[in-house]
Amino acid sequence: MSQGYSVAVVGATGAVGQKIIEKLVERKFPYSNLLLLASKNSAGKSVDINGSTYTIEEATPESFEGVDVAFFSAGGSISKALAKEASNRGAIVIDNTSAFRMDKDTPLVVPEVNKHALHEQTGIIANPNCSTIQMVCALEPIRQQYGLSKVIVSTYQAVSGAGAAAISELTTQSEAISKKNPNPEILPVKSAEKHFPIAGNVIPQIDVFEVDGYTFEEHKMMNETKKIMSLPDLAIAATCVRVPVVTGHSESVYIEIEKENVSVAELKQLLSETEGITLQDAPEKQEYPMPFFAEDQDDVFVGRIRKDPGNDKGFHMWIVSDNLLKGAALNSIQIAEALIEEGILKEV
Amino acid sequence: MSQGYSVAVVGATGAVGQKIIEKLVERKFPYSNLLLLASKNSAGKSVDINGSTYTIEEATPESFEGVDVAFFSAGGSISKALAKEASNRGAIVIDNTSAFRMDKDTPLVVPEVNKHALHEQTGIIANPNCSTIQMVCALEPIRQQYGLSKVIVSTYQAVSGAGAAAISELTTQSEAISKKNPNPEILPVKSAEKHFPIAGNVIPQIDVFEVDGYTFEEHKMMNETKKIMSLPDLAIAATCVRVPVVTGHSESVYIEIEKENVSVAELKQLLSETEGITLQDAPEKQEYPMPFFAEDQDDVFVGRIRKDPGNDKGFHMWIVSDNLLKGAALNSIQIAEALIEEGILKEV
Repeated sequence: MSQGYSVAVVGATGAVGQKIIEKLVERKFPYSNLLLLASKNSAGKSVDINGSTYTIEEATPESFEGVDVAFFSAGGSISKALAKEASNRGAIVIDNTSAFRMDKDTPLVVPEVNKHALHEQTGIIANPNCSTIQMVCALEPIRQQYGLSKVIVSTYQAVSGAGAAAISELTTQSEAISKKNPNPEILPVKSAEKHFPIAGNVIPQIDVFEVDGYTFEEHKMMNETKKIMSLPDLAIAATCVRVPVVTGHSESVYIEIEKENVSVAELKQLLSETEGITLQDAPEKQEYPMPFFAEDQDDVFVGRIRKDPGNDKGFHMWIVSDNLLKGAALNSIQIAEALIEEGILKEV
Repeated sequence: MSQGYSVAVVGATGAVGQKIIEKLVERKFPYSNLLLLASKNSAGKSVDINGSTYTIEEATPESFEGVDVAFFSAGGSISKALAKEASNRGAIVIDNTSAFRMDKDTPLVVPEVNKHALHEQTGIIANPNCSTIQMVCALEPIRQQYGLSKVIVSTYQAVSGAGAAAISELTTQSEAISKKNPNPEILPVKSAEKHFPIAGNVIPQIDVFEVDGYTFEEHKMMNETKKIMSLPDLAIAATCVRVPVVTGHSESVYIEIEKENVSVAELKQLLSETEGITLQDAPEKQEYPMPFFAEDQDDVFVGRIRKDPGNDKGFHMWIVSDNLLKGAALNSIQIAEALIEEGILKEV
């Protein structure tokens, strides 16, 4: 294609970076030039994409000269060092780290929920945390129709959210699941003092602890949901837990809506009509979402919707999505596509 | 020992039956005679216990002549067929299945919570569901001190709750976690139409679905908690999920208490002083309960206690216990010990 955008992918060798490249090709994103950037260690490697060979270059401030859209997924410190360098050179940055998410000048966007916020961008747009994205996709249509006053979520998060080393750790430990010597080195947090096995275990720590006893991951879910949904006073609490699953985050979500006498059938109908959501809710046929079957799927899967026995306005549901796709790479591409649709990224 | 009770274990070859035998020996339960019963298939096998050889016999109504205490853990149909036969012959039955739990004449007992209910027994005492027991152990001291009005729980349940065949299924699948052909045959429910992989997956179905969209396991947690705690109007809802862990159930629990201005420190102090509970709650040192470390431990482990950001009376916590011990075998033995302490099982 001769006409199109100059696109850079920072962190092109990582789990999310590779999915971003896959999705750019699969969704026929109109790029005329694709620049693959990574740390010095990965520079020089070549990658075959859609029949063309690309050489990975070291990401530097100068890399972004002439770039229209830059996808960042190389960790918070790289984003902090280079995202502004890129936007100063005219690129719109779509950042997949937590570096700018709660910054008041940075829109935090899930296109199905708050595409309008893209118009407030000043060069950087933040892609939310994986576990947040899939939840707000399911909550937003409900909030629009019935109001939303309370959310309590317990997550069952896959190890791929902690990167390729964590996947390898689970795989190695799983092969030795009967051994009591799993040699943990990566999870729950590589830089933390203690490490615990993940195979045959669940770990109620994702990211570091904050002073109030919640983890940073839990704060991300709580604060990002309020920001994306423009509900600063929403009562929301999260418990985030890592489980021995490679890809696919699951969430047990309790919500309280504002309208009375809403039935489970009405919620199911609403979600079944929502783009980006696949309703899998037929218990009598054992149909409900599971991470094993959500892997490599674009949609957010919702099921097991039940009314709370003690509260007419309370509902329980089960939400599953591929954390590397809608939780990361796919949502980033959808942001870029929305920038074109909204006329923010000018046609070239 | 010459003086002591005549004890029968029905289902002696099962995962829970074996733990019952282990705990009878370890806790020096005063038995003079130990009768190991099982289905016809297992009859004739011999087992070595504490230096003596026992032969497993087929369980029949006549097996219970002269028996003082009979532990049943061979499935609901065996309990329905033989528990009354045993109690009619003078034995006190401690039943580990769901057969009699919600029967109004059958006490449902966790000794730390409602030992007093043993006095209402009419020959059968029910041991609650594994996921219920560990939760009520943590909730009862809180309820006594501060009142309890609401409970929302999401579970992370180990496969051993589904028996030896489910453990074997997880182990076999785990060795082949990278394959996409895990051949599921047991989980989520052996008799159900569909089976799903558990290695690398989580399954939001434990036991069969009921008409209201909750599973029977979820109803067990909801109804049994009300019965054990004598709180028929407690607002409680459960989401029960199977995870690829061999032994040790975990629970993300949200509660609302009745008293205002209770601090997290007060809850921690209270639980740290409660017998049968080990408080593991020092996030700054990454101390929190995990199933990998709870296996083979008698206690219920509680940690990650946090105040709900939107509700002064709301708290979140994380509860883990060995589902085969406090969740089953240990609690059964503790019921028998309490029967002696309370003078219900007469000294022999």
